Amino acid sequence: MADRTGEPLSRRALLAGSALSVGGAIGGAAAVAAVAARESGGGAPAVPSSTVDYGGQMVPFHGRHQAGIATPAQAHAAFVALDLAAGVDRAALRRLMLLLSDDAARLTQGRAPLADGQPELAQVPARLTVTFGFGPRLFDVAGLVEQRPATLQQLPEFPIDRLQQRWCGGDLLLQICADDPLTVAHAQRMLVKDSRSFAAVRWVQRGFRRSRGMQDDGVTQRNVLGQLDGTGNPVPGSAVFDGAVWISTTDSGPQWLHGGTTVVLRRIRAELESWDAADTAGKEFAVGRRLTDGAPLTGRHEQDLPDFAAKNALGLPVISEFSHVARAHVTGDRQRIFRRPYNYDDPPGPDGTADTGLVFAAYQRDVGGQFLPIQRNLAEADLLNEWVTPIGSAVFAVPPGCEAGGWIGEGLLG
Amino acid sequence: MADRTGEPLSRRALLAGSALSVGGAIGGAAAVAAVAARESGGGAPAVPSSTVDYGGQMVPFHGRHQAGIATPAQAHAAFVALDLAAGVDRAALRRLMLLLSDDAARLTQGRAPLADGQPELAQVPARLTVTFGFGPRLFDVAGLVEQRPATLQQLPEFPIDRLQQRWCGGDLLLQICADDPLTVAHAQRMLVKDSRSFAAVRWVQRGFRRSRGMQDDGVTQRNVLGQLDGTGNPVPGSAVFDGAVWISTTDSGPQWLHGGTTVVLRRIRAELESWDAADTAGKEFAVGRRLTDGAPLTGRHEQDLPDFAAKNALGLPVISEFSHVARAHVTGDRQRIFRRPYNYDDPPGPDGTADTGLVFAAYQRDVGGQFLPIQRNLAEADLLNEWVTPIGSAVFAVPPGCEAGGWIGEGLLG
Ligand code: HEM
Ligand code: HEM
Repeated sequence: MADRTGEPLSRRALLAGSALSVGGAIGGAAAVAAVAARESGGGAPAVPSSTVDYGGQMVPFHGRHQAGIATPAQAHAAFVALDLAAGVDRAALRRLMLLLSDDAARLTQGRAPLADGQPELAQVPARLTVTFGFGPRLFDVAGLVEQRPATLQQLPEFPIDRLQQRWCGGDLLLQICADDPLTVAHAQRMLVKDSRSFAAVRWVQRGFRRSRGMQDDGVTQRNVLGQLDGTGNPVPGSAVFDGAVWISTTDSGPQWLHGGTTVVLRRIRAELESWDAADTAGKEFAVGRRLTDGAPLTGRHEQDLPDFAAKNALGLPVISEFSHVARAHVTGDRQRIFRRPYNYDDPPGPDGTADTGLVFAAYQRDVGGQFLPIQRNLAEADLLNEWVTPIGSAVFAVPPGCEAGGWIGEGLLG
Repeated sequence: MADRTGEPLSRRALLAGSALSVGGAIGGAAAVAAVAARESGGGAPAVPSSTVDYGGQMVPFHGRHQAGIATPAQAHAAFVALDLAAGVDRAALRRLMLLLSDDAARLTQGRAPLADGQPELAQVPARLTVTFGFGPRLFDVAGLVEQRPATLQQLPEFPIDRLQQRWCGGDLLLQICADDPLTVAHAQRMLVKDSRSFAAVRWVQRGFRRSRGMQDDGVTQRNVLGQLDGTGNPVPGSAVFDGAVWISTTDSGPQWLHGGTTVVLRRIRAELESWDAADTAGKEFAVGRRLTDGAPLTGRHEQDLPDFAAKNALGLPVISEFSHVARAHVTGDRQRIFRRPYNYDDPPGPDGTADTGLVFAAYQRDVGGQFLPIQRNLAEADLLNEWVTPIGSAVFAVPPGCEAGGWIGEGLLG
């Protein structure tokens, strides 16, 4: 876990030929020192670059869990949904996953896949992760229906939904995240290219967060609505996170998914026109947190726990029971979900209306037991609904990671 | 000029309340030191962030030239073309440019425009620049046809072109560049919103380069074809650059444009399928430079000048006369153009074919005297044409900058 949630290895530091012992034990500080030592002989860049090697940083591909979930969110993401072609069976799926796992293992470590026409573009891994997910229909195609998790099915349509089919469903998910957009584009092209004889592209959703170095690492970022988004998340690497996200032997459900999870992907449009028109108090009331610093309306600091019982002078709850955080809050740690959302911003219409919102990705052991109850609560009554509209929806089982020499999905398809 | 091409001021440093004299004289190193001093009391982020404040860096809005041209290219760009609405006249245009100049002056300095619904998003300027351009029809609309530069007209269609109207033309260009994609998205929305009663969105082209901190500042970046792109450019701040780009009293043409320039924007699709299939020697022959390090085929280092006269053992030119650099090369310094291209990468088709290429922006005093001859040379015979296809085209006059209290376009519309 430490290698996924801690500071990733620096490729430049590894290549620097320093006397450091090279391996999982290299800490961020040591890597940075190695780079600094190596670079002090060079010219003086505008900003001393000795401590910055965002491009060379790598997240291990191999491990018990797939990367890209507990990994601190990279700045750029491409979510690619593929539809398996007619005639693809379990054997073909196995070949596909072998091929894509090999591509991902190389690309994430700054190495070009075998048939890369632009191998130079692979040299900036920028914390690239590739995370694979299996959609409900994949199990039919593979003849493995009994291995499908019971609650892995497209979500029911909620009254708040205005789903567009072009953003829904998919048999195979490629979640490609990196701190650099060219790295994401290149990895996406390599992976899509190698999928072509097996599958068609159903949709691609690009997303972004603030670039690295814009703010301190680890601060909660704002989304396109201007809200601090992520405060109430379980912390990657914590026992709460592990218990909420990673499927284990204590779970019912198919054994091949142990060490894996599930992801729900919702494309949620933000109605910025009316959001602009609302006043700050109204916006804060709808969410239950302050816009300036993200503190709950009952607290002073971002990390203060919301006090849902607190009443104001009139005897009314300070945090409305219809606020987003009140409706989304669950008390059981194992009922929580982990949100890893990205912003999207497509070209506005001719009249200037923004087409923007969240590519909302939520990870949990069990869609039915965790995501669905929260989503139902929100769909039923959430003041924020006035300004957000789900327009896309998809679910995938995320297989566990693999060791060197293995491939993703081996436990199911192998 | 120094403020545009040198290290931008750091907002965070300015806010740090240090003993530094605050003003144009703050150098990059001093700003960095101030930030370091302020931050040493905080926790220990994964990467020491004391020397990184990419988010707080600002490029001055006011000055003799508009920013965003000599400014070292930021990581993200949105090129927005607006079509002026029926009924908009010179007086309305004046109001529009006053409004947009005020928005830009604020946003670029990390301050929210007056009617900003998400003012918190303005707090990360990330070297934001907003550059305005006037399309050919704007002069008709304003009743100022005689003030239009003689060669400012949509380019003729070249035999290599496969232009799509949805990427062509436009009356008013907003070129929005910053190192952070959320900063670009927010600025775009504010500017488009304030344009709405005057103009419709014709097209938006988003582009990206490597994020900051991925590679050392100032190194030549690779484009989606994997080529080092930018080597042969005039250097911003140099006399050659100034003579090629900025319109001055020695130029014929309208006086209001002194201190301004023109921009040609071409959307050029990269045919990556066949580019992948070509071998390295073929790719290098087509351009005249090596893929690995960008050196000319006649040289050893990226910055070596190409020797177009050099012959190989067979007596043939080492750099083909039909190579891209040979065809694009001009000998007169004042005939050169300045390229500031971005990559684009739209979702691939269902069959996985990439929709990717360059948002190619070229700046020059005179479209007819500089850009056109080069473009004609390339259209006539350039080996690279096999792999690149222009699908969009637009031209704009870029007014000079303005001083505090002024607005962009004042010399024309005021
Ligand atoms: C565009 C749509 C959405 C926006 C803008 C949004 C925004 C927010 C914000 C600002 C917070 C408070 C800060 C934080 O803890 O992150 C929050 C909390 C939360 N949201 Fe959302 N959200 C959206 C959709 C959803 C959806 C679809 C779900 C799940 C179905 C969800 C589940 C949660 C949860 C579980 C919390 C934490 C509640 C707690 O404090 O326990 N959100 N959201
Ligand atoms: C997708 C289209 C294009 C690609 C991929 C491309 C790529 C390149 C590359 C790799 C170089 C060599 C390195 C450098 O100096 O930057 C170059 C040089 C150059 N290109 Fe392009 N280019 C494209 C389109 C254009 C267009 C449309 C023009 C102008 C009409 C142009 C003008 C130039 C010039 C002036 C040079 C420098 C030549 C010299 O060394 O003097 N390019 N381009």
